[in-house]
Amino acid sequence: MFDIIKGPKFITCEAEFEESSIVIFGAPFDGTTSFRPGTRFAPMTIRADSMGIETYSPYQEADLEDKKICDLGDLNFPFGNTKRVLKKISKMTNNILENGKKPFLLGGEHLVSLGVIEALAEKYSDLCVIHFDAHTDLREDYLGEKLSHASVIKRIWDILGDGRIFQFGIRSGTKEEFMFAKEHTHLNKFNASTLKEILPMLEGKKIYLTIDLDVLDPSIFPGTGTPEPGGMSFNKFLKSLLSLKELEFVGADIVELSPHYDQSGVSTAVACKVVREVLLML
Amino acid sequence: MFDIIKGPKFITCEAEFEESSIVIFGAPFDGTTSFRPGTRFAPMTIRADSMGIETYSPYQEADLEDKKICDLGDLNFPFGNTKRVLKKISKMTNNILENGKKPFLLGGEHLVSLGVIEALAEKYSDLCVIHFDAHTDLREDYLGEKLSHASVIKRIWDILGDGRIFQFGIRSGTKEEFMFAKEHTHLNKFNASTLKEILPMLEGKKIYLTIDLDVLDPSIFPGTGTPEPGGMSFNKFLKSLLSLKELEFVGADIVELSPHYDQSGVSTAVACKVVREVLLML
Amino acid sequence: MFDIIKGPKFITCEAEFEESSIVIFGAPFDGTTSFRPGTRFAPMTIRADSMGIETYSPYQEADLEDKKICDLGDLNFPFGNTKRVLKKISKMTNNILENGKKPFLLGGEHLVSLGVIEALAEKYSDLCVIHFDAHTDLREDYLGEKLSHASVIKRIWDILGDGRIFQFGIRSGTKEEFMFAKEHTHLNKFNASTLKEILPMLEGKKIYLTIDLDVLDPSIFPGTGTPEPGGMSFNKFLKSLLSLKELEFVGADIVELSPHYDQSGVSTAVACKVVREVLLML
Amino acid sequence: MFDIIKGPKFITCEAEFEESSIVIFGAPFDGTTSFRPGTRFAPMTIRADSMGIETYSPYQEADLEDKKICDLGDLNFPFGNTKRVLKKISKMTNNILENGKKPFLLGGEHLVSLGVIEALAEKYSDLCVIHFDAHTDLREDYLGEKLSHASVIKRIWDILGDGRIFQFGIRSGTKEEFMFAKEHTHLNKFNASTLKEILPMLEGKKIYLTIDLDVLDPSIFPGTGTPEPGGMSFNKFLKSLLSLKELEFVGADIVELSPHYDQSGVSTAVACKVVREVLLML
Amino acid sequence: MFDIIKGPKFITCEAEFEESSIVIFGAPFDGTTSFRPGTRFAPMTIRADSMGIETYSPYQEADLEDKKICDLGDLNFPFGNTKRVLKKISKMTNNILENGKKPFLLGGEHLVSLGVIEALAEKYSDLCVIHFDAHTDLREDYLGEKLSHASVIKRIWDILGDGRIFQFGIRSGTKEEFMFAKEHTHLNKFNASTLKEILPMLEGKKIYLTIDLDVLDPSIFPGTGTPEPGGMSFNKFLKSLLSLKELEFVGADIVELSPHYDQSGVSTAVACKVVREVLLML
Amino acid sequence: MFDIIKGPKFITCEAEFEESSIVIFGAPFDGTTSFRPGTRFAPMTIRADSMGIETYSPYQEADLEDKKICDLGDLNFPFGNTKRVLKKISKMTNNILENGKKPFLLGGEHLVSLGVIEALAEKYSDLCVIHFDAHTDLREDYLGEKLSHASVIKRIWDILGDGRIFQFGIRSGTKEEFMFAKEHTHLNKFNASTLKEILPMLEGKKIYLTIDLDVLDPSIFPGTGTPEPGGMSFNKFLKSLLSLKELEFVGADIVELSPHYDQSGVSTAVACKVVREVLLML
Repeated sequence: MFDIIKGPKFITCEAEFEESSIVIFGAPFDGTTSFRPGTRFAPMTIRADSMGIETYSPYQEADLEDKKICDLGDLNFPFGNTKRVLKKISKMTNNILENGKKPFLLGGEHLVSLGVIEALAEKYSDLCVIHFDAHTDLREDYLGEKLSHASVIKRIWDILGDGRIFQFGIRSGTKEEFMFAKEHTHLNKFNASTLKEILPMLEGKKIYLTIDLDVLDPSIFPGTGTPEPGGMSFNKFLKSLLSLKELEFVGADIVELSPHYDQSGVSTAVACKVVREVLLML
Repeated sequence: MFDIIKGPKFITCEAEFEESSIVIFGAPFDGTTSFRPGTRFAPMTIRADSMGIETYSPYQEADLEDKKICDLGDLNFPFGNTKRVLKKISKMTNNILENGKKPFLLGGEHLVSLGVIEALAEKYSDLCVIHFDAHTDLREDYLGEKLSHASVIKRIWDILGDGRIFQFGIRSGTKEEFMFAKEHTHLNKFNASTLKEILPMLEGKKIYLTIDLDVLDPSIFPGTGTPEPGGMSFNKFLKSLLSLKELEFVGADIVELSPHYDQSGVSTAVACKVVREVLLML
Repeated sequence: MFDIIKGPKFITCEAEFEESSIVIFGAPFDGTTSFRPGTRFAPMTIRADSMGIETYSPYQEADLEDKKICDLGDLNFPFGNTKRVLKKISKMTNNILENGKKPFLLGGEHLVSLGVIEALAEKYSDLCVIHFDAHTDLREDYLGEKLSHASVIKRIWDILGDGRIFQFGIRSGTKEEFMFAKEHTHLNKFNASTLKEILPMLEGKKIYLTIDLDVLDPSIFPGTGTPEPGGMSFNKFLKSLLSLKELEFVGADIVELSPHYDQSGVSTAVACKVVREVLLML
Repeated sequence: MFDIIKGPKFITCEAEFEESSIVIFGAPFDGTTSFRPGTRFAPMTIRADSMGIETYSPYQEADLEDKKICDLGDLNFPFGNTKRVLKKISKMTNNILENGKKPFLLGGEHLVSLGVIEALAEKYSDLCVIHFDAHTDLREDYLGEKLSHASVIKRIWDILGDGRIFQFGIRSGTKEEFMFAKEHTHLNKFNASTLKEILPMLEGKKIYLTIDLDVLDPSIFPGTGTPEPGGMSFNKFLKSLLSLKELEFVGADIVELSPHYDQSGVSTAVACKVVREVLLML
Repeated sequence: MFDIIKGPKFITCEAEFEESSIVIFGAPFDGTTSFRPGTRFAPMTIRADSMGIETYSPYQEADLEDKKICDLGDLNFPFGNTKRVLKKISKMTNNILENGKKPFLLGGEHLVSLGVIEALAEKYSDLCVIHFDAHTDLREDYLGEKLSHASVIKRIWDILGDGRIFQFGIRSGTKEEFMFAKEHTHLNKFNASTLKEILPMLEGKKIYLTIDLDVLDPSIFPGTGTPEPGGMSFNKFLKSLLSLKELEFVGADIVELSPHYDQSGVSTAVACKVVREVLLML
Repeated sequence: MFDIIKGPKFITCEAEFEESSIVIFGAPFDGTTSFRPGTRFAPMTIRADSMGIETYSPYQEADLEDKKICDLGDLNFPFGNTKRVLKKISKMTNNILENGKKPFLLGGEHLVSLGVIEALAEKYSDLCVIHFDAHTDLREDYLGEKLSHASVIKRIWDILGDGRIFQFGIRSGTKEEFMFAKEHTHLNKFNASTLKEILPMLEGKKIYLTIDLDVLDPSIFPGTGTPEPGGMSFNKFLKSLLSLKELEFVGADIVELSPHYDQSGVSTAVACKVVREVLLML
């Protein structure tokens, strides 16, 4: 039913679909990337290098081996047809939701989150989105295209409306985007210092977590299409992330790793650890 | 009228549009690339590194400084919309043709040639295409998409029909593609050894030259999306190219340089020299 | 009159010379670099990659599009003749000053600052220099050569004398250099913690700002000739920089980006942002 | 029974063990590499990048899809214990032979061939070895160690004796090694020009084919531990290889790809094609 | 007596063996590395790049030129024989100790520390080890091998016993390793915040200092086999290091730099500075 | 007397100055390089990587171990002063000549040859130069500088005059340079096909051999400042070189390796082998 590319599995995520509570799938799409492409290689590279990390988290004192997680592989996408790609992601997400499991998406570029949220928003009417990113992603369009990794949060806002999107770490955008955010989203410039006061608003809500890894400072995460200096350190980001632990997550994604700009392999190591920590939180 | 990105100009190609016989423009598009993207960076990188080559060709004993060539810059493309991209290329080609000049396209991926040929084929009913490439590019579609860099020659055949396409250096494709070629195109496997006998067929015709630089062996041209060992050496390719000198070219392109896979800069140096030699031939 | 190499312009800096208040020019010189050369490629790489940043600064809440800035291109230097290079820089600076504009120099290695200051010091008798750097640059000579990127601040001191040079972030030098600094310059080891107390001394003076980007920690700025661990983070550096905003700057430079040691492109992204922030401050 | 690391499979080699005539397994071992290590990454990188090649060979006019091949994955080796590694390889080879199938080994460094041949030589008393390599590999020991990638052919000679080893492309070794070869092996210096006259000697014999990919010139195969300029071109090597087609092969390996020295990916692309051609020959 | 590979010497460490108080030697061994090998290249790369740093430390206000240090070169190791390697290291350490000098080892992978400590523990019955690392290194074995860089601290514990090992910066390991540490070593997770309270316990003891450079965050130290995000910054690490200054060190090592994953050269620059600071402390 | 930087020695070249017939010294100078600098790193990189080649040449069936060669190290140059650099080279060459030995220079950029030839031409009035290169190097000046790597052969012609310079492999230059060569030097375009007929002219003369390694095709030698596709293969170049064996060489150099553009290390491996073969010929 689904056209899947198989590869190695994320470390220990070798459960069958039926027995799993979380289902990982990859969306190797970078068709609207505006600067340096290559996020298509992220899901397979993350899986291959996951062999290099421990399954045990000294941060959460928990072990991936104690969870049942299925890693399906990557969706096989056509090249050059953005709409078909998003439809495939939505369809897979629906399949996962219908079976009572939580989707965990490995991007690809940020636009892929839209496919997941289209499916989730139908199921959960109170869906909120926690968004870590360097960029606002709130453009109305990019050179005339409304489906773009630079406008994905605007498209998500089209679906969810005001007050449901919480943005952290943002340090790049147009004047118009920052003005839009003031009225329609919660936007925390530069870091996540407002997280504590926001947490109470999110309690009891269904939460989707979308992590554009370029929220991290490019010193620790150079392997991305549009690196933006001045980002969060790994430790600060992890602390913010773990402070969300008690929320009710219904899905998550990590996006925008571009392995071919990661000669040292450090960005991929970062991605692997973030995947581990988020999987342990879900 | 045209949305153009300016940059450095290809060495000595600084004539005004009006006074030029050849017009260079870039098509920084890699939206259907099936393996490693990044050809979008080729036109600007070629221009920047063209400062490193001489304008004089000891092969043709001719100098670029003695020609009037205009380098317009790059077309500014939307990301993720293949059809709009091709339309922009056709429109620019028409503009150049209407002013009595010859187009010289810097790709981008190979699909961009389709935009140029759509315009040329309307003007020249006897148009023939000389095609250097490692790949047949004769798929009917790629994962359901008919507009793909892997099917561009098939799309061109849709326009031109049998006996008008001459392929050299081909060493990769499906069984079906090679079978199609047997009946519908002239295909020279591995090298250009049949060129001599074919030349008489091409005399007097209007010729478009499309050079997928991966026709060269990846030892000398590693910086491309899908490197195919077993290709032509630079010297053999150049000799084949120069043997075409007396034909009546109405346009040309070079495509598929992917600079971010060219750490040594050698692939770009190759591209610069091929551009120089083709410009001197046109 | 000036021998100029043209390229892309720094983003939005497309005003004509006459209408501009700031004039950017590049000094692609690395002739006295003692370890890894290649800063000659910095100005053009900064310009090309500036397309990847936004023109709007969320730090200063200001937009480059609202300023009139001219980017002239690079001076064309002879190779191997340091004195002629410095003379060309001084001459261009004089030209800019005579037209009532402020010079903004893109290096090149640090010695290029000397050419600018020679011109500025003639015009402004109270000129002070704010100097961000990892290195003291206070050697009397380097292997017998007095014109060296390791002795540029000493040469500037030769012109300006005691108490006019303010150095921040310094973490590398000989014992002699640190001893010299104690008596003749203000030197803040390791960071810019003394900046606040110094600011009052600088008010009302004409200030030249010279930023050797290796003041930043090599985690965020690896692309430089002599990386020195233990530097300032991007955020701390930016905060220090913006605290200077009310001073009266008469010119500025940024130097020592070496793009070929910046495989990830992050160092260039840093340089682009620093250029944007300084341009908005001038 | 076997400790296996799973990953992607070599393109189309997805048959079950039982139904296959050829069984691929990886030996990610580089423990005796004398210069640049890293061949441990070769088997998985070859599999992952095999997606980038066609299954159809225009050289042999045959398609991998028409064969039944099983790709088991990689043996999981201890680090730092050479003998245990070789034993694991022998055991797996025996397993494959006992089931009437042919082993195809993806190295790893060249020493891994010894494990296969130990098993094969027990089964086939007339076993001969065809050896493509830049190096003689005939040292008695390397810094006192008899089990070394620089002495693997000497160890194989210990088993097979005189006149059973045929070496091609050899261009590096000590004086002693070349002298030993004169008396005990057939050694073709620099190329494979003697292949034609040797073929008749090999007819009717059981042949093992071991290809150290550094036999290729480093222009086309830079990604190896000890690159040796002056090697065979891809086309000449392929022609030599295909001339062996009628021999009776009982197994084969390709070794010494070191992917982390293959930034352009071209060496891996070469390895993939060699694997395809050899699989089609077996 | 010792088989030594000579190269450049660490900057200013050109004293004769007899006149020196500290003796540097390299252990270019990476035979048990579990992920990315290549630390064998570290000692020579550190020496070569040491020319790029100053001999004067502005942190300690001391100069390497004022010390007598001998840099012997690298031990010449066999490949693939872990035990012989460790024996060679022990023998050299004994030689240094017998002459009343302190050993300073440049690794190589972390297992090499075992060779030094075997010799030191015989001489100093109260030997304690200060261990900076990202990893616990407390596995009983790795895939059956007890001599592994992942179990080196366990092997050292086998010699020293409880309460003699002090671990800082640890952020990766199995659940079992962390549990072992709770009972048998002092382990400071993530950073060195407990250092102050521990210092009194160490006073008067003989101390060996082993620095696995991956204790540093991979933003500043990407060039290592198993990068672990979330590490110490260079400044925090240096501060911790210098706080140990008054202890009585009897030897030290730095290990796990892997230069071929350090394209920018920054990791090597870090290693050089750490070597300088430790040499000034000994 | 000479300011020398020591490092590793070229493999086996460990004889004392007095007992040697050939003396190697390095000239780490790249001050007039017009495109990509970095040849300053060549001599030390060649020495370090020479450990990776055999001392025995299967081409000449001779072994470096049988010769007495002294490798002095690198001259320590000031940065930014071309004339002082050349003087230091001449002085060292004189020193070698006065002691009855032959100089072998490791560049550095091509201009360094001028320093050697200035000394040699004084001693040998009939000196001829055999010059392998991609470039004519016959410019009168480069942007006004007469001492440039692009005009080094012109400067040598100033000393030697007509008919004494023999150029091979040349494939890049201005029209003027090729015209000059027609009248004043022997220039073999593209390859060395005229070598055979020229050899008799050179018999009995004192010959200096200068090899700009960019004469090789950049497929096998990418690590150079100005790569020029279309060059000689390693095997053809070696064959040409060895055909000169009977001439009476009085010195030689190899220049223009730029190691930082040689990520795979292959260019350095080529340089090492060329050094070995030339040393065996001298």
